[in-house]
Amino acid sequence: MIPTITAFERSPDRGRGLARDMPVRWALEEVGQPYEVRLVSFSGMKEQAHLALHPFGQIPTYEEGDLALFESGAIVFHIAEHHRGLLPDDANARARAITWMFAAIGTIEPPILERSTAMFVERDADWSAQRLPLIDDRIRNRLAALSGRLGNADWLDGMFSAGDLVMIGVLRRLSASGMLSEYPNLSAYVARGEARPAFRRAFDAQFAVFTAASAG
Amino acid sequence: MIPTITAFERSPDRGRGLARDMPVRWALEEVGQPYEVRLVSFSGMKEQAHLALHPFGQIPTYEEGDLALFESGAIVFHIAEHHRGLLPDDANARARAITWMFAAIGTIEPPILERSTAMFVERDADWSAQRLPLIDDRIRNRLAALSGRLGNADWLDGMFSAGDLVMIGVLRRLSASGMLSEYPNLSAYVARGEARPAFRRAFDAQFAVFTAASAG
Repeated sequence: MIPTITAFERSPDRGRGLARDMPVRWALEEVGQPYEVRLVSFSGMKEQAHLALHPFGQIPTYEEGDLALFESGAIVFHIAEHHRGLLPDDANARARAITWMFAAIGTIEPPILERSTAMFVERDADWSAQRLPLIDDRIRNRLAALSGRLGNADWLDGMFSAGDLVMIGVLRRLSASGMLSEYPNLSAYVARGEARPAFRRAFDAQFAVFTAASAG
Repeated sequence: MIPTITAFERSPDRGRGLARDMPVRWALEEVGQPYEVRLVSFSGMKEQAHLALHPFGQIPTYEEGDLALFESGAIVFHIAEHHRGLLPDDANARARAITWMFAAIGTIEPPILERSTAMFVERDADWSAQRLPLIDDRIRNRLAALSGRLGNADWLDGMFSAGDLVMIGVLRRLSASGMLSEYPNLSAYVARGEARPAFRRAFDAQFAVFTAASAG
């Protein structure tokens, strides 16, 4: 059965692969699962048909027969659980890979989201320029710890896993900030993920959507 | 095998069950799994022995034989996957329950963490009073959507699951704000979780740690 995901008709990231369909596309490419994409507009995301799939009116969603899921981490996990290649067979290694998925979303991403809020939502507020260094220090605390744990390894825990896929997706949100370059092993880690053929296919697919929307 | 978790020697929440050992204790109580607790101090959390278990120097951790995990969501998931009672048997219902775990951590919690940062970390900053209403509106957007999805149901998707356990843990962080009372069905949902015998046992256990530390 070919699953259908949703993605932005016109992504606000201008095709840089920062929208949340990207990790889902990447996971599907890693396991070799073809998929279909239904594009939704910003107004369409808030309509009842989409809200029935995604209570928070966002993308991506994932439909496969009777199953409808939302939340990119949950969708990546579902794909990883039902295909080989994104979770180790060993039970303990599998639990640790899942831990890295949760760590990416629960520990690394929150201060990065705060940064996005400061840069965009609160851009014109008096305090934004003063707050940004405070936020960046909180991000650095997390990156330093992550960098220390990764060390010289290629991936966070043995083989490439869904934990790396989600973590790299989160770290890519910092690309424009230049902060990753302060941690060379993290920059190399992200580059290693981006060099995977499955990442390239996923990236190109979402970029093609942006290009088509811009031409249209 | 009896797992060992870590918790604060002296929790900054003064025993209100908002520290992240609480969802782990609650999950263990729901499935009837006895556990041991090792208390760690704030300085101890940053020492090498603890950092080897938790790269971000926080609590909780979870040790079970050769397995060491961190990140409360990942630990709750591990417990749910290895015991009956926190995830439905039906594959689709199970995937949806896992989706709610990720939604709690990835969608509901980030603006709530921003609120905590504004209230505590940036408490004395000039902008905090002005920013708080903006943050609260972002929280309300998420709560309104969650409230709409929950409707009159007892739990988010059929039976009580790890998704509800994590979601209620996240919503309880808003207790002191009074915001939950704007959404009566969410208040009732949290109260329903707090009334579960397993929640009470977990709450009492963490409260006893706080009481002992205060007396000591």
